[in-house]
Amino acid sequence: MIIVPVDELTELGVKIFTAQGATEDQARFLVDTLVEANLTGHDSHGIHYYAKYSERINNGFIKIDQKPVIVKETASSALIDGNWTFGQITAKKLTEVAVEKAKKSMVAGVGAFNCNHIGRLGYYTEMAAKENIITTMYANVGNPSVSVHNGLGKTFGTNPYSASVPTGSDTPFLVDYASSVVAHGKISVARAKHTKIPKHWTRDMYGRVTDDPNDIYDGGWLLPFGEYKGYGLQMISELLGAVLTGSRTGLPHIREPPAPNGVFMLAVNPEGFIGLDAFKEKTAQLLSDVKKLTPVSGERILIPGEPEKETKAQRLRDGIEIPEDTWGEIMKLCNRLGIETGVTQK
Amino acid sequence: MIIVPVDELTELGVKIFTAQGATEDQARFLVDTLVEANLTGHDSHGIHYYAKYSERINNGFIKIDQKPVIVKETASSALIDGNWTFGQITAKKLTEVAVEKAKKSMVAGVGAFNCNHIGRLGYYTEMAAKENIITTMYANVGNPSVSVHNGLGKTFGTNPYSASVPTGSDTPFLVDYASSVVAHGKISVARAKHTKIPKHWTRDMYGRVTDDPNDIYDGGWLLPFGEYKGYGLQMISELLGAVLTGSRTGLPHIREPPAPNGVFMLAVNPEGFIGLDAFKEKTAQLLSDVKKLTPVSGERILIPGEPEKETKAQRLRDGIEIPEDTWGEIMKLCNRLGIETGVTQK
Repeated sequence: MIIVPVDELTELGVKIFTAQGATEDQARFLVDTLVEANLTGHDSHGIHYYAKYSERINNGFIKIDQKPVIVKETASSALIDGNWTFGQITAKKLTEVAVEKAKKSMVAGVGAFNCNHIGRLGYYTEMAAKENIITTMYANVGNPSVSVHNGLGKTFGTNPYSASVPTGSDTPFLVDYASSVVAHGKISVARAKHTKIPKHWTRDMYGRVTDDPNDIYDGGWLLPFGEYKGYGLQMISELLGAVLTGSRTGLPHIREPPAPNGVFMLAVNPEGFIGLDAFKEKTAQLLSDVKKLTPVSGERILIPGEPEKETKAQRLRDGIEIPEDTWGEIMKLCNRLGIETGVTQK
Repeated sequence: MIIVPVDELTELGVKIFTAQGATEDQARFLVDTLVEANLTGHDSHGIHYYAKYSERINNGFIKIDQKPVIVKETASSALIDGNWTFGQITAKKLTEVAVEKAKKSMVAGVGAFNCNHIGRLGYYTEMAAKENIITTMYANVGNPSVSVHNGLGKTFGTNPYSASVPTGSDTPFLVDYASSVVAHGKISVARAKHTKIPKHWTRDMYGRVTDDPNDIYDGGWLLPFGEYKGYGLQMISELLGAVLTGSRTGLPHIREPPAPNGVFMLAVNPEGFIGLDAFKEKTAQLLSDVKKLTPVSGERILIPGEPEKETKAQRLRDGIEIPEDTWGEIMKLCNRLGIETGVTQK
């Protein structure tokens, strides 16, 4: 395991993407979303994408010179054509438009299509919460890796869901998770670290129980969480993220471009309802009351978003751990691009 | 077990509530939501409320002579004061306003407070889908029965979530479930039927594993589904359903009026995005493709909403089964109100 200071990892990322034609602004935003994923403990959505996105740029799937454009609009809705630029740039635009419209119209919905992989949804719902707007966000992932409830084989992507609200206190409120038991990237991380995985995460190619992270690369699949309840969320993310926005659905199975996201965000301004000040005050009170509850023996009660906050504080201090395989791929990439890494390994 | 034809059960309900001062229209809508719950297999939300709501009318918690009123409004948002009439009447108004605003503004959000128990959320999201509007709906339940993740004791209600979309085919799409492993009413039904319950549904007053449905009436509690993932939905329904609308939250624990709902609905018009015809066509295709997938041995692949549709067809034909205890309470009520039941028991 390599440990790299956060600032150096960020500057390296900016170098990598500007060397391939991204503007400084594009690169800095993109890299911030990836480094933030590592900081908050979601390594599966982190800087291992430095190499993956570079490959997609090379293959023409990510079109750096394109920009997301609104193609349909009302005072409380918008549909964005991402034009296959970085998914993060499209998701940033989607969030900004949703927040702006919700500020004026109280409620807004914005969708995006022709959108590459946007990374961690929580990055965007948290962006909106900092602007005092409540959001829920749905995305489908165009590459199938998860079965439907009672289904054999991969049907849909990990189809994540996120929601965040302004809390009026230091306690965050951020829900952000895959509708599978785990995100696909968590299997990649286990594979890179050569560790086993829990038996309720995946099935092998024959539908058998397994704890080997390699099986999913050999015809196996992820399971939806909470049986039919997670299956419901999986389908909602497919219908709102993909069908409603005109994005590619998981079915029929098309492989390219890899892992695109159909994205839909609903944004709500508390001023249209109880009012912003009252919402923040009552939310802060509720979260504080929950924190004071008695936990079961040996456990802690955490508000959704608190584990991320704690991990971030620790990693900002200690740096980010990167598996040797991932680091090797990034070094190979830097070599190809002629980049001096300038990174201090701890 | 008593089996009663659907029409007779409906007419009996209308008699019961008009005898207590409800208008014919109010009573017929209210009773339709309850009978529909039984028809679709959700007995926990069904006609056992004939007796419970009558008790709440008697105690002054349900105010039959009141009407829901919009107290705050924009082109795409509304906040409704339910004035403690039947929750169903308030939820009907909320749905109608959300649909109307979404038709004009593409996206809308409507909340309600001072709202009695509204019953099954799926009734309202399905109402909107029939009007070609996509909805997601959040409700908190003001009486605590579910622990938070890792928490000891009851903190929040079963805080349900529902979503529905127009499908453009006979296959419905309806997600509707509690953020607990099961709805509280499912325990009541097991208790009335004197059957055991699965061990992952509840804990007893000491936090111990149990299969006795009585334990929850003696200090026990329900668990959120899918561990921290269901806990996230539980909190979202509390924040959107209760905090945003100014309704009573589960914390602090106040007992009266019993089981009020804070309700929030988001409504989306496909015309603001891919367009209605395309949305319905692509949704029908997707659901048909999912139906054709191979199931695991001995299971079936069902679209969310299909189990309800199948149960409804069977119960419309065969009548609704009612536990003796529930029927006894309704007969006692009819006796008190001087109502001739006119019901044919099968």
